[in-house]
Amino acid sequence: MSFVGFIGLGLMGKPMASRLLKAGYEVVVHNRSPKPVEELVALGALPASSPREVAERSEFIITMLPDNPDVRSVIAGTNGVIEGVRKGMVVIDMSTISPSLVRELHKMLADKDVDLLDAPVSGSTMAAEAGTLTIMVGGKQEAYERALPLFRAMGDKIFYMGDPGMGAYTKLCNQIAVGLNLLATCEVLLLAKKVGLDQQKVIEVLSTGAGNSWQLTTLGPRIIKRDFRPGFKVQHLRKDLRIIREIAEQLGLPLIGISSVAELVKALDQKGHGTDGTQSLITLLEELAGMG
Amino acid sequence: MSFVGFIGLGLMGKPMASRLLKAGYEVVVHNRSPKPVEELVALGALPASSPREVAERSEFIITMLPDNPDVRSVIAGTNGVIEGVRKGMVVIDMSTISPSLVRELHKMLADKDVDLLDAPVSGSTMAAEAGTLTIMVGGKQEAYERALPLFRAMGDKIFYMGDPGMGAYTKLCNQIAVGLNLLATCEVLLLAKKVGLDQQKVIEVLSTGAGNSWQLTTLGPRIIKRDFRPGFKVQHLRKDLRIIREIAEQLGLPLIGISSVAELVKALDQKGHGTDGTQSLITLLEELAGMG
Repeated sequence: MSFVGFIGLGLMGKPMASRLLKAGYEVVVHNRSPKPVEELVALGALPASSPREVAERSEFIITMLPDNPDVRSVIAGTNGVIEGVRKGMVVIDMSTISPSLVRELHKMLADKDVDLLDAPVSGSTMAAEAGTLTIMVGGKQEAYERALPLFRAMGDKIFYMGDPGMGAYTKLCNQIAVGLNLLATCEVLLLAKKVGLDQQKVIEVLSTGAGNSWQLTTLGPRIIKRDFRPGFKVQHLRKDLRIIREIAEQLGLPLIGISSVAELVKALDQKGHGTDGTQSLITLLEELAGMG
Repeated sequence: MSFVGFIGLGLMGKPMASRLLKAGYEVVVHNRSPKPVEELVALGALPASSPREVAERSEFIITMLPDNPDVRSVIAGTNGVIEGVRKGMVVIDMSTISPSLVRELHKMLADKDVDLLDAPVSGSTMAAEAGTLTIMVGGKQEAYERALPLFRAMGDKIFYMGDPGMGAYTKLCNQIAVGLNLLATCEVLLLAKKVGLDQQKVIEVLSTGAGNSWQLTTLGPRIIKRDFRPGFKVQHLRKDLRIIREIAEQLGLPLIGISSVAELVKALDQKGHGTDGTQSLITLLEELAGMG
């Protein structure tokens, strides 16, 4: 049976690692804080003291971390994954990071005959628990095929997108749609509230036609109930939008819409909503409207 | 059998009037240009020479016109509907116009004991032909119930939203979602194209999750095929967004996202895309990106 390393046991990483355990893999885990490690060890996982040790004891290594610096440090830093890898292994980064960092790490690992797949996910913690994530993968096709059984333990919509970085780019495309459709949902519900429409009925009407979106039908009802618990956290959307803007700058793309969303989400984070769900964006708009 | 007046036989009005004919109503029609009148008369409609004459010969009068000034002139101008109405009649405006104009006309007609319903629609010409429009209605509930058989001949998703103007406000909510989800779709496909992703596959991936929207799955494939034929014309979206911005100003709402879309759609119209479909927005972004 394959040994799979898993580094980064947060809201998404922990249930993903747990799915691999349930699928019968030996899972070697590491995390900055010890509590989720203990929880997974109780389910049968094996603890490791560093990313390097995870790599030494595994054939595949998965990383699921917050941002570019975390991934760089875990893979390429002192006691990092790269110090423990052996020829023929596959490292799978499932975080949402910059495609340029993906390509840089891909090259570093390729020098050791190790493959890197960028395989970010879309879906909530609930989808991670149920093994129904969407997974978008970039990297060498041969490595993708070797890793496919692992992906199938964690997701049910798995897409091979092409060369290294293409998984990351696909995820950023997804976040453009997520951010703008979220803003649409908030502006719709702001106008509806201001003029005294039944907000729930507005969602129902719009969902029948050209105004329909996942954000509207999933987050809209939570906004009405003032349920701001995180399915996806403001601080993570802020980070994703920052990466999108960096890319827009590098590539000369006029991403006017998502840039406005990025400014609003930054303000929302700075107002203390970082760990709330992204639907808390409504509170910022209400405040700007004098409805707070 | 009821006589129903229908004024405004454009891309939407003509198939809607045709549905009423098929449902067995006597339909009295009027239009600025004669061609669609002739087409409907060939199907059994009765021509009238002015909005006033339509009103004189009908029990219900439907208007389906481009913008505020058209509706004002047809209902309240010289030889307008208001000169031909009788007590107890119902005027149904199905155009997308300002809620403030709805309320003004509602009051004028109420002075003659005539009801006005604001009942804008969502859906394409195809939905109008099939009788599957979404219809969102404001006005007195008793008038709504009297008009319901007419609505059922034209649409299959019919919602009573409340007082006069509430149908119009619901439609504007819809257009906020339409506009921002359209921009999301264009920014997604712009980034995807620039980095060499398979655009069709990106739509497929995003449609499985939190980035999904009607605009993405319906207009996205047309953008890829460079099919800019109108399901909904740029000039009409421009008008709707202008009305939304006027309302945002009146109500003090910070509709930052849809305001950006309004600026882009205005530029798109001015570049000669007024009668193209709204998905032609991609051409403006590509030009700004130096990809034109």
